[in-house]
Amino acid sequence: MGENNESDIIEHHVDEEMEKKTARCHAASSPLLESSPSEREGRSGSSTQSSHRLLAYSDALISIIATVMILPVAHTKVEDNEELRESVQLLLTTKIAVYLMTFLIVTMAWAAHIRLFQVIVRIDDCLALLNLACMMLITFLPYTFSLMATFPENMLGILLFCGCVMVMGVIQSVIVVYAFSRPFLLNEQIQISENQTFYKQHILKVIMRVPIMCFFASIFSFIFFPLSYVLLAIITFLPYISQCLKWCRSKAIGQVEDTPDSMVFYTYLPNEPLSKERVEAFSDGVYAIVATLLILDICEDNVPDPTVVEKQFGGSLVAALKAYGPEYLAYFGSFATVGLLWFVHHSLFLHVTKATRFMGLLNTFSLAFVGGLPLAYQLTHEFPRNSQNELEAIQISCVIIFFAGIFQLSIWVVALYSEQETLHPYVWYGGREHVFMLAKLALYPCIALGTFFLTCILSKFSTSIFHLMEITVPFAFLVLRLLVRVGLAILRFIFCPNRSNLTTVVDDDADETRVPFNAVVT
Amino acid sequence: MGENNESDIIEHHVDEEMEKKTARCHAASSPLLESSPSEREGRSGSSTQSSHRLLAYSDALISIIATVMILPVAHTKVEDNEELRESVQLLLTTKIAVYLMTFLIVTMAWAAHIRLFQVIVRIDDCLALLNLACMMLITFLPYTFSLMATFPENMLGILLFCGCVMVMGVIQSVIVVYAFSRPFLLNEQIQISENQTFYKQHILKVIMRVPIMCFFASIFSFIFFPLSYVLLAIITFLPYISQCLKWCRSKAIGQVEDTPDSMVFYTYLPNEPLSKERVEAFSDGVYAIVATLLILDICEDNVPDPTVVEKQFGGSLVAALKAYGPEYLAYFGSFATVGLLWFVHHSLFLHVTKATRFMGLLNTFSLAFVGGLPLAYQLTHEFPRNSQNELEAIQISCVIIFFAGIFQLSIWVVALYSEQETLHPYVWYGGREHVFMLAKLALYPCIALGTFFLTCILSKFSTSIFHLMEITVPFAFLVLRLLVRVGLAILRFIFCPNRSNLTTVVDDDADETRVPFNAVVT
Repeated sequence: MGENNESDIIEHHVDEEMEKKTARCHAASSPLLESSPSEREGRSGSSTQSSHRLLAYSDALISIIATVMILPVAHTKVEDNEELRESVQLLLTTKIAVYLMTFLIVTMAWAAHIRLFQVIVRIDDCLALLNLACMMLITFLPYTFSLMATFPENMLGILLFCGCVMVMGVIQSVIVVYAFSRPFLLNEQIQISENQTFYKQHILKVIMRVPIMCFFASIFSFIFFPLSYVLLAIITFLPYISQCLKWCRSKAIGQVEDTPDSMVFYTYLPNEPLSKERVEAFSDGVYAIVATLLILDICEDNVPDPTVVEKQFGGSLVAALKAYGPEYLAYFGSFATVGLLWFVHHSLFLHVTKATRFMGLLNTFSLAFVGGLPLAYQLTHEFPRNSQNELEAIQISCVIIFFAGIFQLSIWVVALYSEQETLHPYVWYGGREHVFMLAKLALYPCIALGTFFLTCILSKFSTSIFHLMEITVPFAFLVLRLLVRVGLAILRFIFCPNRSNLTTVVDDDADETRVPFNAVVT
Repeated sequence: MGENNESDIIEHHVDEEMEKKTARCHAASSPLLESSPSEREGRSGSSTQSSHRLLAYSDALISIIATVMILPVAHTKVEDNEELRESVQLLLTTKIAVYLMTFLIVTMAWAAHIRLFQVIVRIDDCLALLNLACMMLITFLPYTFSLMATFPENMLGILLFCGCVMVMGVIQSVIVVYAFSRPFLLNEQIQISENQTFYKQHILKVIMRVPIMCFFASIFSFIFFPLSYVLLAIITFLPYISQCLKWCRSKAIGQVEDTPDSMVFYTYLPNEPLSKERVEAFSDGVYAIVATLLILDICEDNVPDPTVVEKQFGGSLVAALKAYGPEYLAYFGSFATVGLLWFVHHSLFLHVTKATRFMGLLNTFSLAFVGGLPLAYQLTHEFPRNSQNELEAIQISCVIIFFAGIFQLSIWVVALYSEQETLHPYVWYGGREHVFMLAKLALYPCIALGTFFLTCILSKFSTSIFHLMEITVPFAFLVLRLLVRVGLAILRFIFCPNRSNLTTVVDDDADETRVPFNAVVT
């Protein structure tokens, strides 16, 4: 009776997970789950659970931590003072570099977390608690890194940073060992495979690589600390660079990679699959925290003190709030921009069936620029009207929006390269949704570029142009489908004037003349 | 061909959604989806999408905004100065009241959002953009409310607040009208029903009730503003109070409610179903932002300035960081507590099959206390050792943890009352997981209570006791299952000593003697 009940629990949880993530677990039932109750009995009675919510919570935590280092940048007071300008600009540049590096490092930790939980698809209480300990260390990483950046010659920063990374490595190894000792927690692919020990050793080897390098870096920090930085830089960038080169070479020569399909975990290949669900959850977290960063400041700082209102504004609250006017505008502007960029991201990933590591990397770059948006918007209202600084702030905003949009567009282009695997059929190159999606993705980069050049030419009206842009864009998205149809009709009218009366069947034509994207570009 | 393609798209998205949310949409295919392509053609060609990610993003935004008003409270400087103490305490009390009210108001807006998107289960681009506009207004609500609280005699606050609520009401009405004009966006239950117009009018009536009351409140603010506050209070609390009374009465008399099953939307009944998925997502957001609030402060404020380190600490970074020591401790303490409360919440909702509005309300109360945790932990390190203030801060922390835990426990008790509908069979009263779950939920309240009374008696060692508690709890969770087994064995040994050698079959006994919870308590 007891045993029966227990297998009921497991089967129920498995069923639940199967329903939710049919894409992730293809085999509906595996031999290990059906049989060997004695083996299950040995796991001190803890029941297995779907890892869905644990991962969602981890994604939320990591996305908040990744974007948080923008706050020290945003709160740096930039005064309109020529004397201090140089030193403030230097400080700002340092802080921005710290922000970007932290973002990169945290997303690397996040990618490692994804890889780990693509192998381990079910959890129990013990794994959940171990994961929380791991999360605590990840959230502490930005602080240690900013210590390292502020005191580059002090070895304490390096030691703390390396210490965090090493402890994280140990916890991850413990998780792997624990999960492999309870095979029903693992991915079906590994569960049914015969050489589990090989997988375990391979994964442990990959996981321990970084902590071991960090261990050497922390030892070198006692002897000759520049060497530690070199080592840390190698850890950070080498996998990307070597894999990029390898991938480019294989693409150029056209050589087929002979990795067996079962070894698709922990390969560092750019086309290694990345859980699409988690990329979405992480992006949602970043967009959400970025959209609300300005309102956090407003809620805290912009409620005037009653005594100040009484003394300085003669009791008129409206007059007191008028002083904050530009900040509200900045808030609504940044919220709308972030919201619409999220909307584009959402539309894009609606059409994606499988995310790869390379797409994830491009997504990270896009998100890093999105994280800079509140800063840029805050800058636009800090300077007096028509000053050189204000113009620069507006142009920086345009550049940030442009890059955030361009990287989204590049995700789309990369997805098109292997459209059969990564995209829904109806958005393949030439498919009926293809042009519309392209227009959605191209709207922000185009508008940002246009605003940038307009402000260069008509620098006197830069603020008005920028605000006009902010107001127009949401409506542009609303009527975009109409605009695309009109645009296509006009194009058709220009290039094939004799078929201009056939615009209603435009989609059918597009479908009939559809060719694979690869064939077009090669 | 074009039409075929389009229905492919819809069917694909529908399939995708069905897979993900089988619980929400029972009917796998509805007549309206299969047929009437002409009707679909009328919707200006926009493709429908699963609303899953839009809701996840909205949940993330709303949860951040709900918890954000704790920041002004946390950043109020509490000095150890007897003179200022009274005024600071008053300020703190006001801010805490503002925080709790904002939390309640924002969660009400969130509940309205859930209700709306339980009726509308598929979205298109237009709905996504309208929803983003709605989100922008919700994120602005806390600010208008804190203006209202700081300047209670100024009508600007009321006007802004009511204005936001009214515009939100209008947007929601537009969403409803839009969705009912495109029935394939609606819930299957409404889609196949014949009196759609009735549903539409009922929903619009419920939605518009609050904005209309706000309209009157804003008019009264010109005439006699206390009346506006009364009106706003009625809007906020009346539905809860009236429904609570009604529910209690019906429970006491035992009268069966005769609401037809199809009218389960927009009833305000405490047992109206609430999307479990969204309650989880919202809770995850709150737990994540609360866990990271302290590290946000640490990252921004606790990286010392190099010149300060040079001058004040003779270049010793370790000495400079030692000054911040207690803050790191507070961070790790609050992260661990929030993380473990999340862990308990996660275990609880793993066993829940259906969430109700009443459970959602209890969850909100629990989350409101969780939101206060970083504040309490921050207070614990701000005062000199062994001062009266420090003791108070530690006791406040214990009280907050206690209430956060007690409300989680009450969710469990409420779920047990209708266990057949809301819980998995194996955790029904007396089921094999029941005792373990109860122990998990009771651990934090018990420990918090114990620590509270210990600090009352041994006030000199309060800090040590508190830190010891922090370190012990994670390990207590790790070995909880073992502890429960030992505890049960001991209980059995005491009450049925003649059966003490049968402890191994404890589960079988529990199963055989299992009775419904309702039968036990009534």
